[in-house]
Amino acid sequence: MIIDGRAIAEDIYTELSAFFKERPSKLGIVVVGENPVIASFVRIKERAAARLGVEMLRIDLSETASTGDVIDAVRRLAQGCDAVIVQLPLPKKVDSNAVLSDIPPQKDVDALCPRHSGEHIVDAPVALAVMEILKRAGVDPRGRRTVVIGAGPLVGKPSAELLKRAGANVSLFTLEEGSIEDLKEADIIVSGAGKPGLIKPEHIKRGVALIDAGTSELNKRVVGDADPACADIASVFTPVPGGVGPVAVAMIFRNLKALVEYQG
Amino acid sequence: MIIDGRAIAEDIYTELSAFFKERPSKLGIVVVGENPVIASFVRIKERAAARLGVEMLRIDLSETASTGDVIDAVRRLAQGCDAVIVQLPLPKKVDSNAVLSDIPPQKDVDALCPRHSGEHIVDAPVALAVMEILKRAGVDPRGRRTVVIGAGPLVGKPSAELLKRAGANVSLFTLEEGSIEDLKEADIIVSGAGKPGLIKPEHIKRGVALIDAGTSELNKRVVGDADPACADIASVFTPVPGGVGPVAVAMIFRNLKALVEYQG
Repeated sequence: MIIDGRAIAEDIYTELSAFFKERPSKLGIVVVGENPVIASFVRIKERAAARLGVEMLRIDLSETASTGDVIDAVRRLAQGCDAVIVQLPLPKKVDSNAVLSDIPPQKDVDALCPRHSGEHIVDAPVALAVMEILKRAGVDPRGRRTVVIGAGPLVGKPSAELLKRAGANVSLFTLEEGSIEDLKEADIIVSGAGKPGLIKPEHIKRGVALIDAGTSELNKRVVGDADPACADIASVFTPVPGGVGPVAVAMIFRNLKALVEYQG
Repeated sequence: MIIDGRAIAEDIYTELSAFFKERPSKLGIVVVGENPVIASFVRIKERAAARLGVEMLRIDLSETASTGDVIDAVRRLAQGCDAVIVQLPLPKKVDSNAVLSDIPPQKDVDALCPRHSGEHIVDAPVALAVMEILKRAGVDPRGRRTVVIGAGPLVGKPSAELLKRAGANVSLFTLEEGSIEDLKEADIIVSGAGKPGLIKPEHIKRGVALIDAGTSELNKRVVGDADPACADIASVFTPVPGGVGPVAVAMIFRNLKALVEYQG
């Protein structure tokens, strides 16, 4: 089964639209620098917001912004908005940790504040998307051998956490731990490495649920970590683009609803 | 220059011996399960302690110990000792984070408590060993292009932190970020991947300082991440075994001294 992430996202927007009609909400976003890939990520969020009637307040800063400039922008948006997104990645010379630490926990829609790691009010959108896709595909993670590829803050770390909470038997594959051979044993694979072609058909078991949350740019196209030929062997397969990505954006808005309700 | 880690360690033990003669100190260690590699790591620490006159109190638990059992052992040792080591890795079913979180900060000689990340009283011994080796080899990291391989809590993360503090221009190479090609540009490489043969002579620049803090077992021998042939190209090279390892053990005892002084 090849997952249609856009259809799942549609379904979630339908579920959310009544809420935002009744409770007009504002989502702030800080964008630093100009870059076509980042611009397209932002556009996707803006389109979703427009369709739900969520107002987006955006602050654009130049590529040369300092850590202090970005923190100022976060603070200004936090004052007037129900939640704040800092569009990642930030330029290298900006201290991402300092910026993300400045998002108030009750407005941290991406669950990225490192100070509240493990104690976020909502969970990370990509990890929620992984769980939503598994649920809709009828895959119960309880007791299943699960390999999470990568331990980054956006995909690997939060996905491993949610899968463990759901009772999966999770092992990691990072540069320090595990290897590509471990994939052969896995019932569920969640990948967030950002390495095109990392997972090939010969690495995986027939019938695996393969959730590809890796995105990279290859020859001007967005691609995932899995060779698309894996779709013939997996029982559940998420393409890139059109798999995890659209569902993760929908989860930002489900999180926004949760934060608005939390703030009362 | 091939670094003689054992000679550096000797030098540090000579520097420390007067202190421990004057102020008898106790170091606790929790060892879970039996495993020849772990046993040899513990033996090296015990030998160093013996030579400095530091008393070691050791609690051995069986492979089947629960998280609670290990925490109990940590608490018992913390009461009677100046500092406590939890010998890693723990068996998979023990929650390492919970155990390490239970070490009192003023007794955390390995700087591993995740709760105090970034606010440890001492720095991680392996990262201190990396800095000590660079200093003794006359390599000032300020402004140097530095690649740290791996972002694990024992090697990559703390080494990147100390190198940044020293003014190095640090980039990471993890499963999610960077690639082996980035090594070609580096003036300094610190590796903690635990992947034998990861770094080959063709990956590195002539004159690089290559600090190999990776250790794995290959065919019953302990090996590092770098092909030993890299020694011919690097200006500074640490062999495995006999490079970073012995210096890191010496740093445990330099940390013990700092914690004893801190506790007054």
